[in-house]
Amino acid sequence: MAKQDKAQPATGSSGSKPSQQGKPGKGVAEARLPKGFRDIEAAEIRTMRVMLDKIRAVYERYGFEPLETPSFEYTDALGKFLPDQDRPNEGVFSLTDEDEQWMSLRYDLTAPLARYVAQNFQTLPKPFRRYATGLVYRNEKPGPGRFRQFTQFDADTVGADSIAADAEMCMLAADTLEALGLKGQAVIKVNNRKVLDGLMEANGLTGPENASRRLIVLRAIDKIDRLGVDGTAQLLGTGRKDDSGDFTYGAQLPERAINNIINFTGIGLPGSSSQGISNLVTLSNFRAKVKGSSIGEEGVTELEELNKLIEAAGYGDKADGTLGIVRIDPSCVRGLEYYTGPVFEAELTLTVNDENGQPIRFGSVGGGGRYDGLVERFTGQKVPATGFSIGVSRLAAALAALGTHADTTPGPVVVLVMDRENLADYQKLTQMLRNAGIRAEMYLGSSGMKAQMKYADKRSSPVAVIQGSDERARGEVTLKDLVEGAKAAAAIKDNKEWKESRPAQVTVKEADVVAEVRKILDRHA
Amino acid sequence: MAKQDKAQPATGSSGSKPSQQGKPGKGVAEARLPKGFRDIEAAEIRTMRVMLDKIRAVYERYGFEPLETPSFEYTDALGKFLPDQDRPNEGVFSLTDEDEQWMSLRYDLTAPLARYVAQNFQTLPKPFRRYATGLVYRNEKPGPGRFRQFTQFDADTVGADSIAADAEMCMLAADTLEALGLKGQAVIKVNNRKVLDGLMEANGLTGPENASRRLIVLRAIDKIDRLGVDGTAQLLGTGRKDDSGDFTYGAQLPERAINNIINFTGIGLPGSSSQGISNLVTLSNFRAKVKGSSIGEEGVTELEELNKLIEAAGYGDKADGTLGIVRIDPSCVRGLEYYTGPVFEAELTLTVNDENGQPIRFGSVGGGGRYDGLVERFTGQKVPATGFSIGVSRLAAALAALGTHADTTPGPVVVLVMDRENLADYQKLTQMLRNAGIRAEMYLGSSGMKAQMKYADKRSSPVAVIQGSDERARGEVTLKDLVEGAKAAAAIKDNKEWKESRPAQVTVKEADVVAEVRKILDRHA
Repeated sequence: MAKQDKAQPATGSSGSKPSQQGKPGKGVAEARLPKGFRDIEAAEIRTMRVMLDKIRAVYERYGFEPLETPSFEYTDALGKFLPDQDRPNEGVFSLTDEDEQWMSLRYDLTAPLARYVAQNFQTLPKPFRRYATGLVYRNEKPGPGRFRQFTQFDADTVGADSIAADAEMCMLAADTLEALGLKGQAVIKVNNRKVLDGLMEANGLTGPENASRRLIVLRAIDKIDRLGVDGTAQLLGTGRKDDSGDFTYGAQLPERAINNIINFTGIGLPGSSSQGISNLVTLSNFRAKVKGSSIGEEGVTELEELNKLIEAAGYGDKADGTLGIVRIDPSCVRGLEYYTGPVFEAELTLTVNDENGQPIRFGSVGGGGRYDGLVERFTGQKVPATGFSIGVSRLAAALAALGTHADTTPGPVVVLVMDRENLADYQKLTQMLRNAGIRAEMYLGSSGMKAQMKYADKRSSPVAVIQGSDERARGEVTLKDLVEGAKAAAAIKDNKEWKESRPAQVTVKEADVVAEVRKILDRHA
Repeated sequence: MAKQDKAQPATGSSGSKPSQQGKPGKGVAEARLPKGFRDIEAAEIRTMRVMLDKIRAVYERYGFEPLETPSFEYTDALGKFLPDQDRPNEGVFSLTDEDEQWMSLRYDLTAPLARYVAQNFQTLPKPFRRYATGLVYRNEKPGPGRFRQFTQFDADTVGADSIAADAEMCMLAADTLEALGLKGQAVIKVNNRKVLDGLMEANGLTGPENASRRLIVLRAIDKIDRLGVDGTAQLLGTGRKDDSGDFTYGAQLPERAINNIINFTGIGLPGSSSQGISNLVTLSNFRAKVKGSSIGEEGVTELEELNKLIEAAGYGDKADGTLGIVRIDPSCVRGLEYYTGPVFEAELTLTVNDENGQPIRFGSVGGGGRYDGLVERFTGQKVPATGFSIGVSRLAAALAALGTHADTTPGPVVVLVMDRENLADYQKLTQMLRNAGIRAEMYLGSSGMKAQMKYADKRSSPVAVIQGSDERARGEVTLKDLVEGAKAAAAIKDNKEWKESRPAQVTVKEADVVAEVRKILDRHA
């Protein structure tokens, strides 16, 4: 947006039309939002509220209790993104309080949970199971669809090392997506950090000297869906040149290790169907590929237990070969370093068309996993914990693209003001409607009939209530059914005919106005 | 909280018990909240949600549309509390973005509304009527009950100069308090900035040279309930010494002006009852006291119109002499300088006893008024606006003290884990309950039966589901009614008798567990 020179004379008083688009004249502020932030308007707010209520109902059903922590934490208590002196805002929004201590806006809901648990450890029920929803903030470069504040919805169980706590997160995620009408259009992918560590160990990639190679291998596994076997093998080997000609340096693994890792991903595995590979086949492949690594075998055992639990609860593969919603998936490699056991990812499998008619897959709408080290930073004690977090905005975008959860709240009934000296009468009519529970308002502007009808239209008002002096004398009001009227207007092309036919309009006794308005509303409900 | 010396050796590894209260050992962070912030736990969150839903329903019924603006605005767009270079955080929390522009966390919901309206002026329906709720932030010295983030709930009408828009704010406030069960325990006080200005003018207090005297007069009027006639007269005259001996410098008014202003407040006015003074009597007193000031007379005319509207709508004084909930009140002097017309204050009249048994009056839980200058800062054009804001936390505190809206959500049914090798069976039982819509969880910790029962108690669980190996063999489960059990335990003093009688316990077929659990829940609903 071009800024006007603030030294120029004010346009407002010099006769030319002052800008109303946020460009300032002399001495006035510019109406603009900081980059990476946005306003959210009525329809999206209402849709979001319905969605959050549905998520909340599932989390409550699972026995989680709500907790709200404040937006700010001391930066040292947040951990992870400690600001350095030169760039204190790297990753997080930080400032100092009056005692010169750094505070930061929370970047997720998990770090504040760790602080809360450490602070209240003695008095909390153990395990402690809480859900939380709220805004989190990231001081990152904004981009299309990437905002600096967004809403998360988390559930965490702290103080439980049982694999059942992890299995439950998968079921919670599945039930949440089902509650939102996404059954059959989503999968919950599961893997285990220990299995991936075991795979590294079984292929000689241990020790700090192999850290960067392990990272390359994990990235290659993560991308196998997109790159295929050949591209992945190149990344595991000497490297890969992509379509643009850019070269990515590879992990430099020997052929045996490359094959092991490719086979770990299950490509070409016997028993794989068009649907995917059954969890039991994946597990037995995992067991073979981590052979000799005790951490890897421990990880496979955990996933086997998890699979038993989800099968018993009805979320696993069926005896008839139908695959369940919870999928053990080698390519599920969560980014965050603090996960120590099972990791989960909720993924939408449906595709929708983008603006250009190209099909796009929504992908991840949430994830989580086990992180046994988070509370330790405060207490010095390891406290086992596992959690799942929904990216509410991404999920809302998916639901919007599907057209489910569209807001259908009607606008208010608008009581027009025909003569301002009788304002009290219009106010009384309006209040009668409101007292009957009908969404209603009196027109509060100063414009005439035509502008008032335009206003009612802009507000998506279903009914306009009109009372001129003649009608008042007769104790009557006229109701215009604006939904019907819009339909009729679309059908009637001739403006003259339209005016004469006066469609969708009825005159009723003042005392009947509530009942008659309700009739029209019910007709369009 | 005493900080441990971070140079001391870690206590965790040296054999002594590591602290779990947030005091750090070596290299670990301290679990503490920044000053002025707090965690909100389950019961309060649930109560607050019910309350916000009730407020929202009223605002929607009045035809307002929701809007959410982000937490941050550019500091120059927020206005009012512009940070200076030395103390950029005075009043607001501010920081610079990557382009070195100052951003601030919003300190209310009105300033962001002004920015939004200025930015979207062309496309908005006019008048534009929106409600908003969300967190606002104040970088002020925290104190008991004073926090640095809190929730507001606002409604505003922008682009309407009609006094009906102000009258509606009063009715909205009244209906909101009624919806919360506070009918008969609240009043909506109304005054008019123009009347107060007129009063100043009629008593010679015009011009910038009298600015500080006007402020003293307004403060004196504001305090008349507490100080009485004499104290107020002293403040209007030479000054007043309070009980502690502190002397407050007075407005140095001549006796005639002192009498005028005291009379303006309605003290000793004929027609005043124990209930208060009728709006019509107050208005005629106002008219007399601002005589000769055109701005004052304009203000009285506005209030007369407002009174007519609220009478017509049923919120004013009744013909039988009963006073209405909306009270025109000379002592209602809102602090914010930007109000330009009617001002409102929602006040709870009920008293509750504090911890020491002393009755306390809750006082203000919200307020607002007309502010015609706010959008002008951006557009150069005056845009009439009026609004009302609820202090949600204050209102919640009042409801909590009244004991209404107490959270009665039962804890989850807890499925105990008697033998861990059969975890899948317990998981299945738990999921059966959840699928039936019953709040339930399987115990996820690693402790024995006794600790599990203690856990169920701490979670306020209504039912414990128990299945040992014998019961499993018979296809049965035992349900413990923990609500009944707690009552029985209170009645039965003898521990032996208690154990033998096994009250409130029933053994049922596995297939009937949902129906039988529901029976117990229904009994306690």
